[in-house]
Amino acid sequence: MANRVFDRLHDIGFDGRGMTRPSYGEGENRAHALFEDIAREHGLEIRRDWASNLFITLPGRNRDLPVVMTGSHVDTVPCGGNFDGAAGAIAGLLILCAWARAAFQPERDTTLIVTRAEESVWFPVSYLGSRTAFGLLPAEALETPRSDDGVTLRDHMLACGAHPELCGKAPVLDPAKIDCFVELHIEQGPVLLEADVPVGVVTGICGSTRYRSAVIHGQYAHSGATPRRFRSDAVMAGASMMMALHEDWKTVEAAGEEMTLTFGVCQTDPAQANFAAVPGKLDLVIDIRSRDEALLERMNTRVIEQARRVEAEFSVRVDLGPRTQSTPAVMDETIQAQVKELAAEMGIAVVSMASGAGHDAATFAGQGVPTEMLFVRNENGSHNPDESMEMEDFLLGASLLERLLRKRAS
Amino acid sequence: MANRVFDRLHDIGFDGRGMTRPSYGEGENRAHALFEDIAREHGLEIRRDWASNLFITLPGRNRDLPVVMTGSHVDTVPCGGNFDGAAGAIAGLLILCAWARAAFQPERDTTLIVTRAEESVWFPVSYLGSRTAFGLLPAEALETPRSDDGVTLRDHMLACGAHPELCGKAPVLDPAKIDCFVELHIEQGPVLLEADVPVGVVTGICGSTRYRSAVIHGQYAHSGATPRRFRSDAVMAGASMMMALHEDWKTVEAAGEEMTLTFGVCQTDPAQANFAAVPGKLDLVIDIRSRDEALLERMNTRVIEQARRVEAEFSVRVDLGPRTQSTPAVMDETIQAQVKELAAEMGIAVVSMASGAGHDAATFAGQGVPTEMLFVRNENGSHNPDESMEMEDFLLGASLLERLLRKRAS
Repeated sequence: MANRVFDRLHDIGFDGRGMTRPSYGEGENRAHALFEDIAREHGLEIRRDWASNLFITLPGRNRDLPVVMTGSHVDTVPCGGNFDGAAGAIAGLLILCAWARAAFQPERDTTLIVTRAEESVWFPVSYLGSRTAFGLLPAEALETPRSDDGVTLRDHMLACGAHPELCGKAPVLDPAKIDCFVELHIEQGPVLLEADVPVGVVTGICGSTRYRSAVIHGQYAHSGATPRRFRSDAVMAGASMMMALHEDWKTVEAAGEEMTLTFGVCQTDPAQANFAAVPGKLDLVIDIRSRDEALLERMNTRVIEQARRVEAEFSVRVDLGPRTQSTPAVMDETIQAQVKELAAEMGIAVVSMASGAGHDAATFAGQGVPTEMLFVRNENGSHNPDESMEMEDFLLGASLLERLLRKRAS
Repeated sequence: MANRVFDRLHDIGFDGRGMTRPSYGEGENRAHALFEDIAREHGLEIRRDWASNLFITLPGRNRDLPVVMTGSHVDTVPCGGNFDGAAGAIAGLLILCAWARAAFQPERDTTLIVTRAEESVWFPVSYLGSRTAFGLLPAEALETPRSDDGVTLRDHMLACGAHPELCGKAPVLDPAKIDCFVELHIEQGPVLLEADVPVGVVTGICGSTRYRSAVIHGQYAHSGATPRRFRSDAVMAGASMMMALHEDWKTVEAAGEEMTLTFGVCQTDPAQANFAAVPGKLDLVIDIRSRDEALLERMNTRVIEQARRVEAEFSVRVDLGPRTQSTPAVMDETIQAQVKELAAEMGIAVVSMASGAGHDAATFAGQGVPTEMLFVRNENGSHNPDESMEMEDFLLGASLLERLLRKRAS
């Protein structure tokens, strides 16, 4: 059944090269409908909130107890892969369907949430769907245009049968009524592959400090006629800043601390830069991630210090622009211990690791819900058509998730 | 008269913000026509070669003697200034007209060449016009498209009344028949301004070593999920390479040697780079200039060494692409001494300096013609609408040029 659902999901939104299922778009709608159809065939309860997040529930014997939850998203980045998000949603669906077929009724309700709009490439809000489910979406976000077509979130919601007019008025999830949330997801880096282990037990989700629109302003000047002491070279200033922060990263790692530092965009102005001119402008994007909030603050201080240093050293002006942040999320230690115990019983090798990427699970953890994530080994990263998860690894991860949900729900 | 010619040249090719007189385009044609008209009014001899370079001559008493030459170009970069090139051409015109008005007849012919197509932004050939005047243009260059409209050099020449069909067949300049070539030009850097001196005596024109299309190939990967040891980060590799070469530059300078090092273009791929991905590609342009050919070779070796180092250190592949070079040109020491002597007599402060930029004078020097350049102080660099030369400084430079040409021609 797993293969069949992955295949049908593949047909929905295949763009000729990869998967394109935009948030609140046709592909996401059809994927949601597919999940709803399969759940209905299995007699599971179906509910949507005002934002059209999908809830599929196997009722427990005592419906007043806090609910056991799992889930993930089915939207993709443009030309993404078929496993990011989908793996977790499908694992949850398989488990509830199997329980229904076996007429297994746990003590607690067990609910799969298939969220909307997790990929922030479409609307610039992290975990839009899961945040909405908890009533955390600011009403003004409804007016945000989607990056591909410029149509607002409000209008896309309306087109998907959601009810944006109920924003702030309709009932939302109550953290006190959730026993736990466990999300299965492909790993988006090479750690499990390298460690030769199929499943990762996530210890925390990194927070971030970002400058998405930093600009170094120098002065364009003739490359041959302008001696070094007269230059305001934006590129050399940028290179110096990047190298200094890279050295900081090495020092942090040598001290046993974990973070990542990325300058994903680094560019001179195509309209003005040329081979014969000292570059007068450089755009930079700075992305720092860590599970350690204090480390993020320390690195942010270093970014500012380095900006001031290169201003003095290279006669430039560094405009870092707005800083955006997300808070690290801590995964539940009790659930981590339960996962490891179950994995040992089942003979599944696991390894503890941090999640550098953000996930819907961060929203649940942020609301105080005991939260955990399981990573499944995956080659070639994510957000590209070459995502490569072995079905064998997926089934190991899903089995482990099943045992965990069963334990929590019983 | 100087002001009037600068003003009329300004009207030709003002684009609303700066000067745009493309090589072999309407603005260059009209500027040439302006020079021709004024020369004709003054009874000067006018001649064009097959490529439509303009020669304006005041005949000497002995027309068999090698000719004294001056000159420069009247094309501009897109949205350039009104002084780059034009100052030298106008200075030569003013001198010949003044001599004609005064009925001064020197011993030798004195010729102003107003070249075509000096700015290599339009056709990717340095000093196209002056090289053509010496028969140095390879015939295949006629098929090169102009960067703005894609029309070939051949067709642009035809539209300007030139005769590309005579390439390789028509007579060209004979270095043995030229006594000297002296070009006046605005300084394109801030050296004279800083030294508070109106005129520079050029010691040599820098040669260059360039990589106009270097690419660092890394591997795109999730910025949060990819630890440092798994990365192939094109931007960090580029920053490391740039900083190492920048350190080399400081060392070279500390040893009293002169060069410039510029990475004028530095950019990630706008289609793929984003804030959440380790950058998998960086385009770089490397420009190194010096009057010292051996130093250019040493720096070239360092570029290659650094490329290999960052390949190993950052798991990337550096494709430097084709290397292009130009040879440094040495200015004539006898003429330099004459200029200094005349400047001292006239009470004009001068300073010796190298030319980091290339000029038509490099073509003459390369042909063995005793060659010299005079720089006039200019603020805000060149190749932009903010070029700012004081008319007082221009007249000092032009007076010095007049005395020098008079001395050489007598």
